[in-house]
Amino acid sequence: MTRNPPERFVLVLAGGRGERFWPWSTRERPKQLLPLAGGGRTLLAATLERARALVPASHVLVLTARDLVAAVRRECPPGVEVVGEPVARNTAAAIAAAAHRFGPAHAFAVMPADHLVEDTGAFRADLERAFAVAERDDVLVTFGIRPAGPDTNFGYVHAGERLADRLHRVDRFAEKPTPERAREYLAAGGWAWNSGIFVWRAGVFLAALEAARPALAGALAPLAGVAPAAFEAALAPAFAEAESISVDYAVLEHAPNAIVLEASFDWDDVGSWGAWARRQPHDAQGNVVVGNVVPIGCEECVLVGDGVTTTAALGLKRMIVVHADGETLVCPLEESDRVRQVSEAVRARRRS
Amino acid sequence: MTRNPPERFVLVLAGGRGERFWPWSTRERPKQLLPLAGGGRTLLAATLERARALVPASHVLVLTARDLVAAVRRECPPGVEVVGEPVARNTAAAIAAAAHRFGPAHAFAVMPADHLVEDTGAFRADLERAFAVAERDDVLVTFGIRPAGPDTNFGYVHAGERLADRLHRVDRFAEKPTPERAREYLAAGGWAWNSGIFVWRAGVFLAALEAARPALAGALAPLAGVAPAAFEAALAPAFAEAESISVDYAVLEHAPNAIVLEASFDWDDVGSWGAWARRQPHDAQGNVVVGNVVPIGCEECVLVGDGVTTTAALGLKRMIVVHADGETLVCPLEESDRVRQVSEAVRARRRS
Repeated sequence: MTRNPPERFVLVLAGGRGERFWPWSTRERPKQLLPLAGGGRTLLAATLERARALVPASHVLVLTARDLVAAVRRECPPGVEVVGEPVARNTAAAIAAAAHRFGPAHAFAVMPADHLVEDTGAFRADLERAFAVAERDDVLVTFGIRPAGPDTNFGYVHAGERLADRLHRVDRFAEKPTPERAREYLAAGGWAWNSGIFVWRAGVFLAALEAARPALAGALAPLAGVAPAAFEAALAPAFAEAESISVDYAVLEHAPNAIVLEASFDWDDVGSWGAWARRQPHDAQGNVVVGNVVPIGCEECVLVGDGVTTTAALGLKRMIVVHADGETLVCPLEESDRVRQVSEAVRARRRS
Repeated sequence: MTRNPPERFVLVLAGGRGERFWPWSTRERPKQLLPLAGGGRTLLAATLERARALVPASHVLVLTARDLVAAVRRECPPGVEVVGEPVARNTAAAIAAAAHRFGPAHAFAVMPADHLVEDTGAFRADLERAFAVAERDDVLVTFGIRPAGPDTNFGYVHAGERLADRLHRVDRFAEKPTPERAREYLAAGGWAWNSGIFVWRAGVFLAALEAARPALAGALAPLAGVAPAAFEAALAPAFAEAESISVDYAVLEHAPNAIVLEASFDWDDVGSWGAWARRQPHDAQGNVVVGNVVPIGCEECVLVGDGVTTTAALGLKRMIVVHADGETLVCPLEESDRVRQVSEAVRARRRS
């Protein structure tokens, strides 16, 4: 894909195993492949539409797990390249591999496949601004999201010196905080959620990786200049050597040239049934009801049935009931962050 | 079946449509056909065992709905006669029909098919005592259950003049009370739950019916002396004419010769998931867990899965979750009396 003059690319990270929507989501059908975006689209398909608004399909690379390649490909417009990772190695290795694939002179955006953005116009404008900055300066641009509350499911980024409107040097990255710490961040101001959306030139990113994590950079170095047809095959030995670590820990926390652009678009990681339900239409009793459900005297519940069998809910308040593929989840809305535990327990039981 | 000298018979009433265990129970598989008795037996099978301890199989008659005859017959030992009612006409008509079938000189016990009795020895002794009383005196013997609490799901009977140990004239029958009234009954003393188990001579019952409800008695009169082989066919015209009314309303409330024997056996009408669960083994967190269920952090719940799919319950307290035949019920344990509403709503939805 290396070309002159510099071009723009998009890397979509679609290897997640997000099971927070069990029983709807499974390892074989993780969150990015669920129709959680508007209009019955999957989060992945909606992400690809946003990518396509920025670059041609031929400039979009999707990295995912090998066993998800076929399902991911079904969501992709023609021309988009889908590559299966030989083993999961988290975001730092995936982004480094893509940087080698695109070539050091080119800028690329990194987009997780399982986030929801509705204001695509603002998204496109912000991303184009980030591309322009990254093409001009040797910086790592990360998108900060103005916090809607003291959420503990995200990393945070603190804005330092102001460079331009909504654009700051990064003062500090912080891992997912405790609830107390998250409240402190909000009270202090200047903190944003770390969205996992980034823009940089491939060469600038690879230099930062080399400086911060030379062993990992070295493991991926054989991918430099590999012909497109040989790229997927070359991933196996490179990933076998590569450390599994997130790009935040491996690179951004150590980079002196990280800058943060405060997003002007809406953003939601749709991290739970509760988060999803907030965006759905509610009935007069505040329930979100989907599929073949018989609700009697329920208030503020999330009730999801399938199209065939009956799921009946009687006298429930703030509960989640989901029946999908014959499997059933029941938990209080407040526990919706713990659903991953359920899918882990179900898998552990199947193994035993 | 008319014979001399007088013999003893048992009528098992198995025509109920009890749907309080939806989705386990349905109209096609009502409560008496569910394995709610010990050892995986249905309530009907356990009732038939109690009947067989009193009389030979040839002296047991089971009345049920026509579409349930095959399923009921599967629960019956050889020799037991099963007759399908052409239309449902409640207990007064069913008992009157059986009285004609047995013949006026003979005594018979009436047993609902969907109650649970564990102390079969005490049951047998009490029933034999009631038979002896009914064979000697022109009385209608009803069994009273010492109330375990101010339950509003039962009729009540008030004991009057004492005739012998645990045996009293009936002072008054009362319909299902309000919670306040039920508490008054318990405070006042002398009130028992009306079990729906009765013993009387057929002729004494028919005379009481004639006195209290002559039109109903007249509708059933053509069954007198009908040959056994012609009995089922003769039911259709008789039931077509018959009023649909319970034996309590039609006969007992008006009978001057009703007496009540306080049961020495345990008795439970297993009227809800909650009532059933109280008799099941509990785990350390007070949950009743049956089938393929993954409980995480649940307390005092009733969690019933099937043998195939997974039902996961996370962080629930005092909730009922039942998954059976692909259908799912979720409700608070305290609402377990309202489950019938669910099955009615499900049926209404199917019709529409």
